[in-house]
Amino acid sequence: MATLSISRRLRRTPFSDGVEAAGVKGYTVYNHMLLPTVFRSVEEDYHHLKNAVQVWDVACERQVELRGPDAGRLMQMLTPRDLRGMLPGQCYYVPIVDETGGMLNDPVAVKLADDRWWISIADSDLLYWIKGIANGWRLDVLIDEPDVSPLAIQGPKSDDLMARVFGDGVRDIRFFRYGIFDFQGRDLVIARSGYSKQGGFEIYVEGGDIGMPLWNALFEAGRDLDVQAGCPNLIERIEGGLLSYGNDMTDDNTPHECGLGRFCNTQTAIGCIGRDALLRVAKEGPVQQIRAIAIEGDRVPPCDRWWPVTSRGKTVGRVSSAAWSPDFGTNVAIGMVRMTHWDEGTEVDIELPDGTRRAIVHEKFWT
Amino acid sequence: MATLSISRRLRRTPFSDGVEAAGVKGYTVYNHMLLPTVFRSVEEDYHHLKNAVQVWDVACERQVELRGPDAGRLMQMLTPRDLRGMLPGQCYYVPIVDETGGMLNDPVAVKLADDRWWISIADSDLLYWIKGIANGWRLDVLIDEPDVSPLAIQGPKSDDLMARVFGDGVRDIRFFRYGIFDFQGRDLVIARSGYSKQGGFEIYVEGGDIGMPLWNALFEAGRDLDVQAGCPNLIERIEGGLLSYGNDMTDDNTPHECGLGRFCNTQTAIGCIGRDALLRVAKEGPVQQIRAIAIEGDRVPPCDRWWPVTSRGKTVGRVSSAAWSPDFGTNVAIGMVRMTHWDEGTEVDIELPDGTRRAIVHEKFWT
Repeated sequence: MATLSISRRLRRTPFSDGVEAAGVKGYTVYNHMLLPTVFRSVEEDYHHLKNAVQVWDVACERQVELRGPDAGRLMQMLTPRDLRGMLPGQCYYVPIVDETGGMLNDPVAVKLADDRWWISIADSDLLYWIKGIANGWRLDVLIDEPDVSPLAIQGPKSDDLMARVFGDGVRDIRFFRYGIFDFQGRDLVIARSGYSKQGGFEIYVEGGDIGMPLWNALFEAGRDLDVQAGCPNLIERIEGGLLSYGNDMTDDNTPHECGLGRFCNTQTAIGCIGRDALLRVAKEGPVQQIRAIAIEGDRVPPCDRWWPVTSRGKTVGRVSSAAWSPDFGTNVAIGMVRMTHWDEGTEVDIELPDGTRRAIVHEKFWT
Repeated sequence: MATLSISRRLRRTPFSDGVEAAGVKGYTVYNHMLLPTVFRSVEEDYHHLKNAVQVWDVACERQVELRGPDAGRLMQMLTPRDLRGMLPGQCYYVPIVDETGGMLNDPVAVKLADDRWWISIADSDLLYWIKGIANGWRLDVLIDEPDVSPLAIQGPKSDDLMARVFGDGVRDIRFFRYGIFDFQGRDLVIARSGYSKQGGFEIYVEGGDIGMPLWNALFEAGRDLDVQAGCPNLIERIEGGLLSYGNDMTDDNTPHECGLGRFCNTQTAIGCIGRDALLRVAKEGPVQQIRAIAIEGDRVPPCDRWWPVTSRGKTVGRVSSAAWSPDFGTNVAIGMVRMTHWDEGTEVDIELPDGTRRAIVHEKFWT
């Protein structure tokens, strides 16, 4: 790991004091903000996440708020997912595409009302695209980044911890739905969602001033549940096939290549800016696609650049994320693989910086 | 300093191998890319920069390329600086503003031809704003991020080093002009520009494959000039009043607040999206503005958050960048100060995390 020079530009979060007190050992930078990556070790954090409950500072999932009469129209312009049936109280995972069908971000859209939305973004300045579109199309909508910082509660004991702070009502929140709950007199949106496969919630903390009071209340309430500070876990997210924008996909990729075709209703998403470009892809299918890849041999080094996937010396794809999985006893990886080699069980080679490894392509991830 | 977890998302550059071989000690993340921050120590790098010549990996100054019949029109829509007199061969520092006059980026625009521009960006995804504007206004222009990675040569011996690799013709390049020079059969744009006050050049390296050959050629040619790997230097840039987008200004600020009013021709920049909003500011002037601030006492800690500037307990501004200056024997800082306290010599207090310091506001920076 390298050393990170801190500055105001790499923004702290409302929870940074808590993260530091919990002994954070590594960061990445995400939406110009600090995102913790490791507390004890990536493997210890991984085991704990699967067995207990963690509190994650994911304030870097910044919100883009759309407000005004054209908010709904604008939201549909951004994504090939058909939003007509979506109701307030729901969250949708929405691929965001440009006019060529290239992915600009893969956020979660939170519908607060017909004329008010939050978009909980991955690592790109989606605010800029949306503001540009709204300006150019002269839409009647206000767009900004509100003072809202998600705090995730993840792991099998999430319901128990959350019920102690917010009441048993949180147990009734369904997957990708949200409810409004009180904390110290403030209404907070709480959704059943999060960037792990272990279950849990995301609290949209509105107002940075209550960040640390909420952080402290959760740790106070969860002492006997072995609550720990955590963060999105590299191993667990690869096992579960949770993609990372900028790692596993870029604006060169269509949603279909990313395996997100099921979130594209290209025929009915009328008004989507990338619709024309995606109609053909939707019909013919992509020529390369995201796959799970098991890499043989010892623990792989950190994947800090694309590793070519080859077959008899010819490049047929690339690996973008990889880690050793203690639970599955293999190196788990995410990569983009051409259709000639994407079938279950295909043997390929992976060109790591320190040599070539054998690997097996899988159609399903490890959960 | 904290630890940075590396991943593909934090992109390596065509020069990363050279940077690592040179013993880089710290990074920041800039435009989703690694930017070195220190090699020997920030102070050693500072003295060397002022006395010799350094090669900087500033590939993170990504380019946004505009190509097509509407490229010039689009470029003028982005900035309040009047571009009508600009010729191919020139570079302009251009504030980029949204419809409210808020700064979205402060790049250098490079005019390659009437219908072809590069915008060498600071740390925000300006590509997204420009693509959104072009789409919404239905402009006939192609916009993308080309494979162009700036490499800066900075310091008093820059001309000598560059002449050895590119010929004496580089000595004739005027400030913020560029010429086309050959390297191994490839035409490269070389401008007299860069993010220091020590003089030098920025080479727009087109094609990542020649990154390391060029890096190596420069070090080979400059051995007796004491050429070293370097990077934008925190101390030197504060002394010189070189602003950093995300540190010293955000989209909340107008160019006038940032002291960039001289780059705004609000009356004549017809077509600029933020023109209406800026007309009033241009007439009445801003109520707060960037200032040089000398902070008394010992070496300040890293400025990783805004430090309030106060006077008799009332907030009158904030410091956004600060460092100890060996050459000037004081802590040099950049801050935004309200008009009640921005006059030369005004005494203020700075609220650091570890206590309050006296400070003096200056109208001019230290060069």
